[in-house]
Amino acid sequence: MTDEQKTIAFVVYPGLTPLDLVGPLQVLAALAQIDPTYRTVVVGAAKDTLDTDTPLRIAPSHTFDEVPSPFAVLVPGGAVPTLRAMADERLLAWLRTAAASAALLTSVCTGSLVLGAAGLLEGKRATTHWMFRDLLPGVGATPVAERWVADGRVITAAGVSAGIDLALHLVERLAGRQVATNVQFAIEYDPEPPQGALDWANQPYGDLKPLREHTLREGLAGNPALRDKLLAHT
Amino acid sequence: MTDEQKTIAFVVYPGLTPLDLVGPLQVLAALAQIDPTYRTVVVGAAKDTLDTDTPLRIAPSHTFDEVPSPFAVLVPGGAVPTLRAMADERLLAWLRTAAASAALLTSVCTGSLVLGAAGLLEGKRATTHWMFRDLLPGVGATPVAERWVADGRVITAAGVSAGIDLALHLVERLAGRQVATNVQFAIEYDPEPPQGALDWANQPYGDLKPLREHTLREGLAGNPALRDKLLAHT
Repeated sequence: MTDEQKTIAFVVYPGLTPLDLVGPLQVLAALAQIDPTYRTVVVGAAKDTLDTDTPLRIAPSHTFDEVPSPFAVLVPGGAVPTLRAMADERLLAWLRTAAASAALLTSVCTGSLVLGAAGLLEGKRATTHWMFRDLLPGVGATPVAERWVADGRVITAAGVSAGIDLALHLVERLAGRQVATNVQFAIEYDPEPPQGALDWANQPYGDLKPLREHTLREGLAGNPALRDKLLAHT
Repeated sequence: MTDEQKTIAFVVYPGLTPLDLVGPLQVLAALAQIDPTYRTVVVGAAKDTLDTDTPLRIAPSHTFDEVPSPFAVLVPGGAVPTLRAMADERLLAWLRTAAASAALLTSVCTGSLVLGAAGLLEGKRATTHWMFRDLLPGVGATPVAERWVADGRVITAAGVSAGIDLALHLVERLAGRQVATNVQFAIEYDPEPPQGALDWANQPYGDLKPLREHTLREGLAGNPALRDKLLAHT
């Protein structure tokens, strides 16, 4: 790392959804390859290997202590483990320290709830996974149904795959449109969802509701204060 | 694992592009959660942590020896390390063994070249990352410029992010359209590329050509026979 480099820090914690992390990491690592002004790191409490919500295990490149002043932070989301991470004081303390100097505070999916638990969404317009959007007022944010939402230095993305769109937006902000287009070609991001665009008028809410209920029940078990706060507005 | 379960095995090797792996893994892990007929595993030569082409390190859940007869195989791609993996005899031997009984042989990005190196693309229509499509005849395949290409049990996807589309196609094949739609909602896959769709008439080939040249030079250094074979048709 050189003195001039700006560090983009991707936060990891046990049980996260790896696509939330890896989509934007792949995009911003490509930016760092093109423009060495930037470097990407993956930060966690320790360098040990962690589980995810898939069979893949992952390990960070740096500890929180090694990256006290990142230029930008990205918090990925997940289900039960992410609600538990909302009470991880070590993680929240690092986010607050990082936020003291960071130019960009970003999240994917329910990662925004972790930013919120650290007190960083107070009064902000924000988004998260569509099934959990109604929890945002519980952390002081105004929910917005968009692919990503920028409110000052806080930029939050919708669920899981939205992190790729967020990251390409960040590349354009940081390095201009041509670099963003080059990165988009490098990851051949020309989506053709086989089932077409999501039909929001026909959300399979009934099929997915048990997942939401399980996530809230298990993720907030043992933390009634947080549960009451999050569910107060739903 | 139960006797009835069908195992979908995601292959890892050092230096791969993690989005090639994690995009489809997230989708098919969601299938396995909905339909326990399926299970997903991440297989590698050993369970040690591996580098990727980003600062993230990853570790498999199983060794090759532990998964001799998967129902389906997915090989992710990458740049220099993937061309080197084309000469990894341990990996190629496992692919050939797995192919003896697998119902589906799939790849993302340059992962198709690894399938090809194992002799599994002979006479097949296939695709890969757009910048390396002209290498496919070198492994006996007919290159096709599509998001994913199915030729019998062999299904190959285009570059990096195309693995998400491939995987949703696989979910529809294996479990039907409603399950695929539910998974698509679960990962909120409703892409809005900030710079729009890729404009293929204006490929930034000049900007990306050094990456191709570096990949071919470094990836095939020390393997002149493979280099000659791959470049003979380009």
